[in-house]
Amino acid sequence: MAAAPVWSVDPRTGKQREQVAVEATAQEVDATVRAAHQARGALADRTVRSALLRSAADELEAAKGTLIEVADAETALGPVRLTGELARTCYQLRAFADIVDEGAFLDVVIDHPDDTATPPVPDLRRHKVPLGVVAVYSASNFPFAFSVPGGDTASALAAGCPVVVKAHPDHPGLSELVAKVLRRAAARHGVPEGVLGLVHGFEAGVELVRHPLVAAAGFTGSVRGGRALFDAAAARPVPIPFHGELGSLNPVLVTEAAAAERAEAIGAGLAGSMTLGVGQFCVKPGLVLAPASAAGDRLVKSLTDAVSDTDAGVLLDHRMRDHFVAGVAERTRLPDVESPVTPGAGGEHTVSAGFLTVPASRLAAEGEHDLLLEECFGPVTVVVRYEDDAEVRAVLSRLPGNLTATVHLSEEEGAGQGRGAEILGELTPLAGRVLVNAWPTGVAVAPAQHHGGPYPATTSTSTSVGGTAIERWLRPVAYQNSPQALLPQELRDDNPLGLPRRFNGRLER
Amino acid sequence: MAAAPVWSVDPRTGKQREQVAVEATAQEVDATVRAAHQARGALADRTVRSALLRSAADELEAAKGTLIEVADAETALGPVRLTGELARTCYQLRAFADIVDEGAFLDVVIDHPDDTATPPVPDLRRHKVPLGVVAVYSASNFPFAFSVPGGDTASALAAGCPVVVKAHPDHPGLSELVAKVLRRAAARHGVPEGVLGLVHGFEAGVELVRHPLVAAAGFTGSVRGGRALFDAAAARPVPIPFHGELGSLNPVLVTEAAAAERAEAIGAGLAGSMTLGVGQFCVKPGLVLAPASAAGDRLVKSLTDAVSDTDAGVLLDHRMRDHFVAGVAERTRLPDVESPVTPGAGGEHTVSAGFLTVPASRLAAEGEHDLLLEECFGPVTVVVRYEDDAEVRAVLSRLPGNLTATVHLSEEEGAGQGRGAEILGELTPLAGRVLVNAWPTGVAVAPAQHHGGPYPATTSTSTSVGGTAIERWLRPVAYQNSPQALLPQELRDDNPLGLPRRFNGRLER
Repeated sequence: MAAAPVWSVDPRTGKQREQVAVEATAQEVDATVRAAHQARGALADRTVRSALLRSAADELEAAKGTLIEVADAETALGPVRLTGELARTCYQLRAFADIVDEGAFLDVVIDHPDDTATPPVPDLRRHKVPLGVVAVYSASNFPFAFSVPGGDTASALAAGCPVVVKAHPDHPGLSELVAKVLRRAAARHGVPEGVLGLVHGFEAGVELVRHPLVAAAGFTGSVRGGRALFDAAAARPVPIPFHGELGSLNPVLVTEAAAAERAEAIGAGLAGSMTLGVGQFCVKPGLVLAPASAAGDRLVKSLTDAVSDTDAGVLLDHRMRDHFVAGVAERTRLPDVESPVTPGAGGEHTVSAGFLTVPASRLAAEGEHDLLLEECFGPVTVVVRYEDDAEVRAVLSRLPGNLTATVHLSEEEGAGQGRGAEILGELTPLAGRVLVNAWPTGVAVAPAQHHGGPYPATTSTSTSVGGTAIERWLRPVAYQNSPQALLPQELRDDNPLGLPRRFNGRLER
Repeated sequence: MAAAPVWSVDPRTGKQREQVAVEATAQEVDATVRAAHQARGALADRTVRSALLRSAADELEAAKGTLIEVADAETALGPVRLTGELARTCYQLRAFADIVDEGAFLDVVIDHPDDTATPPVPDLRRHKVPLGVVAVYSASNFPFAFSVPGGDTASALAAGCPVVVKAHPDHPGLSELVAKVLRRAAARHGVPEGVLGLVHGFEAGVELVRHPLVAAAGFTGSVRGGRALFDAAAARPVPIPFHGELGSLNPVLVTEAAAAERAEAIGAGLAGSMTLGVGQFCVKPGLVLAPASAAGDRLVKSLTDAVSDTDAGVLLDHRMRDHFVAGVAERTRLPDVESPVTPGAGGEHTVSAGFLTVPASRLAAEGEHDLLLEECFGPVTVVVRYEDDAEVRAVLSRLPGNLTATVHLSEEEGAGQGRGAEILGELTPLAGRVLVNAWPTGVAVAPAQHHGGPYPATTSTSTSVGGTAIERWLRPVAYQNSPQALLPQELRDDNPLGLPRRFNGRLER
C-alpha cells in the first residue's frame, strides 16, 4: 500500500501547495520513538541541554527568512505576527536554557541522618530525573510557539527528555523545516538527531501515545482530540502523564462601576482582544459579563463600532472556517440571542468577526443556551447582560474550567473599596490565571506564568508556558544511605554545581 | 432495604468482634462529600491548618491507650509495632504543620513588569491553591500511618483540602475512633467536623471517586483495586488526579564482591526485612538477585537459617492468608523453582515465612516464570541466582516499576572502585528510592523522602510520604496586573508573611 501523502495547503485559497511528507506507519512511529529513546543518554549532561537550547534559538533565527515565508504560506497568520511568534519562541528556548543552568528545577533535598526523628531518618538525598521520551502534539494556531520548537519541546529537552512531535496538519511543511533546524542544533553538541522525532498523520498520533517507550505527552488543541488522547494515555497497560491544554471560554466580568467609568475603552479593548489573530487564541475572551445598564449599553455600542471596523480574516484551515460558520449560526438561532455585529462567513475563504448578546437569566440553569458555555474558535464572543451580582454568580457557577478569568474594575474598586478582592476570590476557582483590568490574549513567558486551569482548560494541574512547565517531564528519585562517591554530583554535600537546595531542612539559595 | 452492616473482625480468630458501622449509600456519600466541601473555607487560613494538625497529633496521643487496643484487636500487628506507628503518624502530622507554617510549598513567584522580555512581561504573581475535597483510600497494613490519620490525610489538610476517607474493611472500628479524634481536633479550631468525612463499603468507594465535588484522590493498596479506581478517576466527565500506590517488587541486587565480603550478614538482614510485619510492607524486598557462586550459597544458607527461626504470624485478614497460600503454591510449582524454606499456611489462622530460589535464566525472557515478577503480599521473597552481569541486566530489564531498588556493594565498590556508580545508574530508572547497603523496609518521614515510583508502584510521579506529598493537592494560579491591595497577602511585594519565594527571577530564602 502506498504511503498516504501529507500536503501543505494554502488557507488563503484552500489549494494544495505541495506534498511535504507522508503519514508515518506504525513501524515508522516505532522506529522514531526508539531513535529518540536511544538519544536520551546524550541529554544526561545539563550543560549539553542548555547549549542545545541556545543553539536551537540561534539556528531558528538564522533560518528566519525561510521559516516565516513557509509559515505564512501555510497559516495565513501574516509575517508581522509570525516574526513576533518566532522571537517569542527563541526567547522561550533561551529562558529554558537559563533554567537548566540554574538547576532549581532539580528540587534537590538532602537530609543527613537524624536519630531523633520518628522513625529515625537515614541519609536521604532526592533530586529529579527525566521521565523519558515525551510525545508532543502541536497546535494549529501557534506554528512556532506551541508547535515543533514550542514550549512543550523546549521544556522537555530542558528536562533531559527526547521528543517525538506529532506535526499539526495545518503546517506540515514548516514542521519539517523546523525539525531539521532543531536536529542541526542537536548535532552541533553531539546529540543524535533522533532526539527530535517528527511524525505526521492522525493514526501516527494515536500510535505515539500508546508506544511503550513514550513516557509522557504534551498536547495543545481541541477538547475532543485532547480527550481522546488523554483517554488513550490513561488506558495504557502503563498509564502515562498527559498534559493537555484543551479548551477555554476565558470569562470576563465587567463591573457596573467599571462600565460607568470607561465603557468605551473596555468595549474597544475587548474588540481588539477577541479579534486578535482572527480570534484563534486559546485565551480569547469568549464570554463577557456586562451590566444590563446604560453603562453596559455604552460598552456594547463601543464593541459594535470596533468590531464592525474589523477586516475579514483567514482562519487556519477551511474545516475551522466551516466549524466557525456553523457554530455561530447554531448559537444565533437560540431564543433571546442577538448579534449586534453578525459573525460568520466573509468571502469565499475568509470569516468576519462579530459578537452575540444574551440575557444572563438564559444561562442561569441548564438548557439549550448551554451551547454558549462552549468555546467557539474564531472571532466571536458572547456578551452576557446581567442585572445584579446574583446573576453574575449564577452564570459563573455554571462555567467549566478555564485558562483565564478576567475582571474589569473601577479605579475605586481596584484601590480596595468595594467588591474587588471578593471578586478575585470568586474567579480564582474558575481559572489558572486571573487578570485585573487587562485582556487575556498575550501569554508572557515568565517564571510566574501559569497557562493551565481546571478541566477542560488542562487535563492536569500543570502549565505549558513559563518556567514551571519543565516540572511535567520529571520525577523525583531519592537515594538512601549511598556513599557520596557513587552519587550524582547534584546530591553531594559540598554542592560542586552550586545548586539551590534544601539542606537538612533549610532552604539554601 | 436495611443498611449493610460493617463488622470488626479479629484476624487472630477470623471471628466478628462487633458491628461498628454500616456501609454508606450513594446518598450518604454525597452528603459526606458536600459537608467536606462546605468545610473548605475554614481551612483557608494557614495558621488554622497547622494548629489543627498539631491538635490532631495531641489528641491521638491522648487517646493512645484505646487506639492501640482496638488497632491490635483488628489487625494483630501487636502493640509494639502499633505504638511505633502511632508515634510516626503524630510525627508526620506535626511535620506537615511545620511545612504549612514555612509556606515554601506555596511556590510563590513574583514577576514585576518587564518590557525588555519577548513578549513583554506584565505584573504576574503565582502561588498555589488547594484543589478541593480529597478522597483518601486507606491501606490495610498501616492502620494509622496510611489510613484515616495518615500521610494522605495529613498532607491534604496541610494543603487546605477537606478529606473524605474510605475506611479499610480490615480496621473499621479503629477508623471510626480515629475519625472522631480528628474531628475533635478540628472543632477545637472552629473547623466544621465535616472536614473529615468517613465512609465504609466497596460501592461507597466507587461513588466517592466519581463524585463531582471530589477534586483528587490518594490511594494505597493493591494493583487491582487501585487500577480500577484510577480508571474511574480518568473516565469522569472531569478527570481528577489519582495518586495511587499500588504494588512493588522492590528488587535487591547483591554483588559478588558484597556476598564474598559479608554473605551471612546480608542473608540475615534480608530475612529480617522480608519477614518484618509478617511481610506486609509495600517495600518488602520481593526479589533478590544473588550470585550463583559459593558466596551466594552462603547467603542462601544464612537466609535459610534466619527464616527457619521466624515464628508463624497472623496476616491482616483471612482473604490475604488465602491469597498468600495460593500465590506461594502457584509459584513453587514452576520448573526450577526451589523452596529452601517453604512458605505457606502455618496454623489455622497464621502463615509461615519462607523463600524461593530460581536461576536467573528462567526470568530472562517472557514465560510462565513471569509470575515471580508479580508482588506476593506476605512473608516470602524470591532469590534469583545469577551467573554474570548480563543475567542481572536481563532480569532488571524485565521488572515493572518499583517503590525501591537496592544494591549491596562491597566496601571497595562503595568507595568508588568497581561498578558501584554504574549500578546506581542502572537501578534509578526502576524505582523512586534507591538504597545502598540497607533494606527498603522503614520509610522515614523526611523532606528528601520519595515514596513512589514508576507504575505500578504509583500511578503518578508523586510521593505519599515526605514533605513533597503536599504538592499532590494543590494547583497554581497566577494573578496578572492586579493591584496589590486586592491580592492574597502571600503575593504582596513586602512579603508580610515572610515566605520563601522567587522574586523577579531571584530565589529568596
